[in-house]
Amino acid sequence: MNASPQRTPRIEIIFTGTELLEGRPNTHQNYLCLRLKNAGFSVVRAATVPDDQKAISSAIRDWSLHSAALIVCGGLGPTFDDLSREAASEALNRPLIYHPEIFEKIKARFSRFRLPIPEENKKQAYVLQGARVIENPNGSAPGQMLKIPRKNDWPQALFLLPGPFAEMSPMFENIVLPRLRSLYGRGLFVEQRVFHLSGIFESVADEKLSSVMRAFKNQAQFTILGLSAQVDFHVSVRGKTAGEAKKLMLKIKAEILRKVGAFVFGEGDATLENALGQELLKRKKTLVVAESCTAGGLASRLTSVPGSSDYFLGGVISYSNEIKKEFLGVRPETLSRFGAVSPECAIEMAEGARHKMKASLGVSITGIAGPGRGSAKKPVGLVYVGLSGFGSKPFARELRLSGDREAVRKRAVSWAFHFALHELADTTLGLFSRRF
Amino acid sequence: MNASPQRTPRIEIIFTGTELLEGRPNTHQNYLCLRLKNAGFSVVRAATVPDDQKAISSAIRDWSLHSAALIVCGGLGPTFDDLSREAASEALNRPLIYHPEIFEKIKARFSRFRLPIPEENKKQAYVLQGARVIENPNGSAPGQMLKIPRKNDWPQALFLLPGPFAEMSPMFENIVLPRLRSLYGRGLFVEQRVFHLSGIFESVADEKLSSVMRAFKNQAQFTILGLSAQVDFHVSVRGKTAGEAKKLMLKIKAEILRKVGAFVFGEGDATLENALGQELLKRKKTLVVAESCTAGGLASRLTSVPGSSDYFLGGVISYSNEIKKEFLGVRPETLSRFGAVSPECAIEMAEGARHKMKASLGVSITGIAGPGRGSAKKPVGLVYVGLSGFGSKPFARELRLSGDREAVRKRAVSWAFHFALHELADTTLGLFSRRF
Repeated sequence: MNASPQRTPRIEIIFTGTELLEGRPNTHQNYLCLRLKNAGFSVVRAATVPDDQKAISSAIRDWSLHSAALIVCGGLGPTFDDLSREAASEALNRPLIYHPEIFEKIKARFSRFRLPIPEENKKQAYVLQGARVIENPNGSAPGQMLKIPRKNDWPQALFLLPGPFAEMSPMFENIVLPRLRSLYGRGLFVEQRVFHLSGIFESVADEKLSSVMRAFKNQAQFTILGLSAQVDFHVSVRGKTAGEAKKLMLKIKAEILRKVGAFVFGEGDATLENALGQELLKRKKTLVVAESCTAGGLASRLTSVPGSSDYFLGGVISYSNEIKKEFLGVRPETLSRFGAVSPECAIEMAEGARHKMKASLGVSITGIAGPGRGSAKKPVGLVYVGLSGFGSKPFARELRLSGDREAVRKRAVSWAFHFALHELADTTLGLFSRRF
Repeated sequence: MNASPQRTPRIEIIFTGTELLEGRPNTHQNYLCLRLKNAGFSVVRAATVPDDQKAISSAIRDWSLHSAALIVCGGLGPTFDDLSREAASEALNRPLIYHPEIFEKIKARFSRFRLPIPEENKKQAYVLQGARVIENPNGSAPGQMLKIPRKNDWPQALFLLPGPFAEMSPMFENIVLPRLRSLYGRGLFVEQRVFHLSGIFESVADEKLSSVMRAFKNQAQFTILGLSAQVDFHVSVRGKTAGEAKKLMLKIKAEILRKVGAFVFGEGDATLENALGQELLKRKKTLVVAESCTAGGLASRLTSVPGSSDYFLGGVISYSNEIKKEFLGVRPETLSRFGAVSPECAIEMAEGARHKMKASLGVSITGIAGPGRGSAKKPVGLVYVGLSGFGSKPFARELRLSGDREAVRKRAVSWAFHFALHELADTTLGLFSRRF
């Protein structure tokens, strides 16, 4: 397959490290993937393998002919479990050549720190036949870069990089990325956006956007990601010039807005909580909350936004009925007649919070998060969101949510954001939820 | 190669998701690797591939004959970019068979939520020929399990699991892990425990436990994982009989308790929030909270425990000073003289919450989460936790936390749990924090 300028050059990455397969996060992967994506490359496989020569060499052997470059990250140290050099040699059937001048440099480095040089470090002076050495100003392990010519096609490139982040990242930024650009990046400009939707399910968004994805499938890449009460639509386009890429993105954006514009609450960094915060600031409104089943989840997410104290005053977590009555002024008759999980109670909670804390808006959540205390009439997942100050009369919205206790609580919070945002801004209410 | 009982069975995992190759952390990988390691399996490759049929199918094709099982995680949803079924079919050269009864179940699920079912969901009713369906009680995508017989060797097993964590993890725990054990675990008895420590840093725990790890390094595997204000110590031992494994574990446990026993607040499923809940129940105490910078984070985590309404009554989120005064009775002089972030204010918040909400115990948090509003005297990360009702006099503890806004808030909540638990139960206070 030809790595023509129209196609995104494909990159594979192999991370070595037994500890990365024992529960530790692989932050190198996040870093390299994001950097490569933003530079216009597609990572088509990122594999983590243990410090085991067979595991590394078989992963290198699986490097696809369809991808341009392979970056192997880790395993260049001096110890017995640093095996990437040997594994590459085995996989590519290329001998390792001893470079005395590299060992001299490592020796000099050690003597600078007045350390005796362990015999083990000699390993680091072996280089794949035909490979170029990449200097490592931040450690003893040099990197390696091997260009493999291919008939009628772009060459493939193999990079061996050290594992420590402080050694790997400068090598990646200063040597690998420029080299990748010069080998494969000619004429490639990338424009990316993420559109955030609320009040819509992933499968429905997918249906509504399918014609857009079909129409542009040769020029753009799309990813739909359903979160709780939110759907993210990732779009990445390529063009021969920056202007061409931008123009195409605007064309696609117009199509997206035509199909699902009413559900879009923001782009890029926007979140439901900062979109709501922006609307509150713009309208000079203050907000308070009254939470039962979510017990602070709404307030906690609201205040994850720096500066949220400009519009958020506080709230009451009314887990017990006593606190609903005494702190929020919910009437005892409401509780005895309709119960704590009712539109009536949600409305009184929102009203009480708003009036007692002297805010312009009040939002309440009361519901049954489960696993216990559900009934046929009021099942687990039944949630009411109360809204006060958003119109002439307070009201409540009903939700019937699925999932376990944490999922119900998380979704209830997201929908509360959506409802509040919908009342303030110009977004669509969405697909369900009775109003009381 | 023969998966003999002496050898650790090898597992490979493929994660699908373009977004995982664009800089998002792959938390599923951490989870599955840790669980498999502790169950006595070796993960020999964990690959992430984009939502692209060729990328997924080529990764499945690269599944090594030397490993026992392959778990494919993600790509079972209803949308155009959910392609794991199709990719597995392509890689293994096995047709997909339509199962009308699965579609009926999905339909029933949608009608329960009063939703029309999109045509896309039909995809989810296709199953690899010969595979067994794994029920998904938490979502619409069923999992699949395919046993591939091999001559003169153990069979290989392929598992297709859905991507959302709330759907994937119960399937993994209840179906995949028991199945892996019954297929490959013969003759291998594994005993695993996780010891949860609080009030200690990862590096200190590592130092204190290093002699234990050295002494048992040939019989057991150890992993230390630092969380916020919590350190988890994973121990996994193998034996020829269940009794042998158990005996060894008890020996190791005795050593662990000798070294760090005072920091251990629980084992296995124990969390700081349910450990605290148990102590509150045992002592018939009720708890309320007053939160400023964490704004509901403490209450939200407290109530993540089912049945927490037996001891948790509610709380006040006092973001504004007005609410601190009016709802918690913090004195105006305290605020003007010491400020809202002070031990004095923390103590009054805890006292006020406890008295006004008629609880036996009150816990408060006030601090500077950042990024703004820090000063030389009161830097970002300065937090006070107030405790009322735990002894004859209320008091506060000082924390100086690192990290960004979210990290400071999360850590403050964890330390508040630790302090409250320490006052009630028999755990060590830990390494730092001034008392006022």
